[in-house]
Amino acid sequence: MTAGPAISRRRLLAGGLAAGAGFAVGGLGGFGVARESQAADPQTVVEPFYGVHQAGIATAAQERIQFAAFDVLTSKRDELQALLRSWTSAAALMATGKPVGDPAGDPNAPPIDTGEALELGPARLTLTFGFGPSLFAGPGPDRFGLAALRPAALADLPPFAHDELDPTISDGDLCVQACAEDPQVAFHAIRDLARIGRGTVAIRWAQLGFGRTSSTTAAQATPRNLLGFLDGTNNVHGDDQPTMDANIWVAAGDDPPWMRAGTYLVARRIRMRIEAWDRDSRGDQEATIGRHKVSGAPLGGVNERDTVDLAALGPDGKPVIPMAAHIRLAAPATNGGIRILRRGYSFTDGIDSLTGQLDGGLFFACFQRDPRTGFVPVQTRLAASDALNEYIVHVGSGLFAVPPGIAEGGYIGQTLFG
Amino acid sequence: MTAGPAISRRRLLAGGLAAGAGFAVGGLGGFGVARESQAADPQTVVEPFYGVHQAGIATAAQERIQFAAFDVLTSKRDELQALLRSWTSAAALMATGKPVGDPAGDPNAPPIDTGEALELGPARLTLTFGFGPSLFAGPGPDRFGLAALRPAALADLPPFAHDELDPTISDGDLCVQACAEDPQVAFHAIRDLARIGRGTVAIRWAQLGFGRTSSTTAAQATPRNLLGFLDGTNNVHGDDQPTMDANIWVAAGDDPPWMRAGTYLVARRIRMRIEAWDRDSRGDQEATIGRHKVSGAPLGGVNERDTVDLAALGPDGKPVIPMAAHIRLAAPATNGGIRILRRGYSFTDGIDSLTGQLDGGLFFACFQRDPRTGFVPVQTRLAASDALNEYIVHVGSGLFAVPPGIAEGGYIGQTLFG
Repeated sequence: MTAGPAISRRRLLAGGLAAGAGFAVGGLGGFGVARESQAADPQTVVEPFYGVHQAGIATAAQERIQFAAFDVLTSKRDELQALLRSWTSAAALMATGKPVGDPAGDPNAPPIDTGEALELGPARLTLTFGFGPSLFAGPGPDRFGLAALRPAALADLPPFAHDELDPTISDGDLCVQACAEDPQVAFHAIRDLARIGRGTVAIRWAQLGFGRTSSTTAAQATPRNLLGFLDGTNNVHGDDQPTMDANIWVAAGDDPPWMRAGTYLVARRIRMRIEAWDRDSRGDQEATIGRHKVSGAPLGGVNERDTVDLAALGPDGKPVIPMAAHIRLAAPATNGGIRILRRGYSFTDGIDSLTGQLDGGLFFACFQRDPRTGFVPVQTRLAASDALNEYIVHVGSGLFAVPPGIAEGGYIGQTLFG
Repeated sequence: MTAGPAISRRRLLAGGLAAGAGFAVGGLGGFGVARESQAADPQTVVEPFYGVHQAGIATAAQERIQFAAFDVLTSKRDELQALLRSWTSAAALMATGKPVGDPAGDPNAPPIDTGEALELGPARLTLTFGFGPSLFAGPGPDRFGLAALRPAALADLPPFAHDELDPTISDGDLCVQACAEDPQVAFHAIRDLARIGRGTVAIRWAQLGFGRTSSTTAAQATPRNLLGFLDGTNNVHGDDQPTMDANIWVAAGDDPPWMRAGTYLVARRIRMRIEAWDRDSRGDQEATIGRHKVSGAPLGGVNERDTVDLAALGPDGKPVIPMAAHIRLAAPATNGGIRILRRGYSFTDGIDSLTGQLDGGLFFACFQRDPRTGFVPVQTRLAASDALNEYIVHVGSGLFAVPPGIAEGGYIGQTLFG
């Protein structure tokens, strides 16, 4: 056997940790370096925390995610604000690879940082915070005084055909999306935010995603989902500013003002019926998706990025891309030009004890300027007709308003509290 | 945002895939290259599949694991042998980064490879196969005619104090440990082995582990577990041949002969009571483990690898390392010099719906020459007295005989069938 190259990443930073002092790696400089050299160790790269928009949306999709939705336990508005301030400070530290506090402080107190990410570096960690519809409502009459500020775009998602939603893995007052190149860095971030929020919030549900299924820049290669197909070939790219401004970011003229430069997140836990899919023929799989399995080319094409020609007919006079094919129904052209930014991850949580089948699939997350013209019409169409419905089922769902980013000194969600 | 360095790994191989032809990367040569250069992309490194011992034991621990235990559905010995032959062929292909068959073959048949790892490379994948006690028994009288060949060392594990084992995530006729630098490569391997075995085997339980908690060579830095402590500082190293031969590998003189050069695996799913641990003071955490949190040094020491002095007394006349400290009770010196090779991984599977707490912890796996003198006495002592028991609970358990490795042309478990 060999020591293996993977070792380097954990060693790299081990020497840089002065006990209790944390460590700084790269800073914003690391960002520029990464652009220059593809060989930079991703564990050392910092994604900027502060900015006009929150990180983790336009950011090139990292390899791993730990997502969590929280219930708020307090009804006191100032405690909620204090939590958001604390979370902001902690998030800014963790984004640079620092612990949230001295892990070797007072021996008579719990460690301020839980420690499992101490030597792992920033690993491109981004933390993206969102507010669920329930934050703007009871229990009781408008507990936080926020009801009047609920965005119209944060309308409850309608029920979709075939949904089998489990309320224990759906919804939430708050959400945090932690994405990183290292799953332990992402897990650590959620755990420490939960620890910081103890008594004020409790995790309602959480999902680990082990592999990205989206590219969010033109430079990223398209990954494969657990159907074995390339996913997200025509995704919105975070570095495509006009498309982001038109489709993803809440604009200056949109209401409410506190959401400007923010966006809306829809998350869906989509179980795949993997065993059934694996028994399906390649031809039927390709007709179901509308693409070739290995090349990723649209049916009728040769290369992944060939134009999707929805009008093309075969020699038999039938559409080359079937009417029920997933890519036809999901295409912007079928949906009035609507574009959403997908940022999904594959997951597996062992075996479903009811069915004896693998509990795995796609943790789908998408960002958009308005879910009422984004996810909702697309999913309505897919739920009604998508050939893929034979092989998938939506079992969890969340909707969140993602407030704008902040400058140093601010806190996430500050515009909501005015 | 930036395209980020992580992109390189998925791009690296994308160009090398001729449709339907699979691809070969590195071969055994990649192994040697990795030893020379720590900068090699771990996605491209091949671990040898063939050898005296199975891979994935002495191999430098990879970052990720997908483990699965299987029930055998057939009672026909020749079908079991045929399965092991098929699994061997598939494993040998996947270990070199190749698909298990042409993913663009007959469009009227299911794809021979499910495809989600096509561009990901070998990623140091190892597949390690084991036989559970139930393979040597019924249902019915000795279904495979193997009862007489059951190793005495494969004695059922005794019940341990505080065990809360769930039978749905315990035991199994067969097991496969898939370790890799990429979780999707590990997941793909288990999925395709399950697909190949359909009708003959069914997955009984499965566990994804997102971060290694063991070093298994001297060159690997010690990782942290979810307690935030360095774990496995004094682990057996796979490249320490005398220790491996004395403690881990079944020796030439051991019975039964078919297990020679094999080993025994004990796997335990250990839930951590993370929220309770995170409320504990640093001093108490350190007394519980017997080490300092940040440095990893044994209490009374300064550096991680300082000698663990179990006899040292403090100024108060009490042991510096408390009598109930985890490292004291687990130390070889406390257990008659017994050494086991630990190869554990951190896991999280969301929220425990009963308690609302994080379902996370340590997927503990260890290898040894004989569990009756390895895991069993150590765990008996830990279960009785370990201060850590306040914060952990064993909820899943598996015991497996891991047969020797094979030369090309052989199949895993061949010595069992004579």
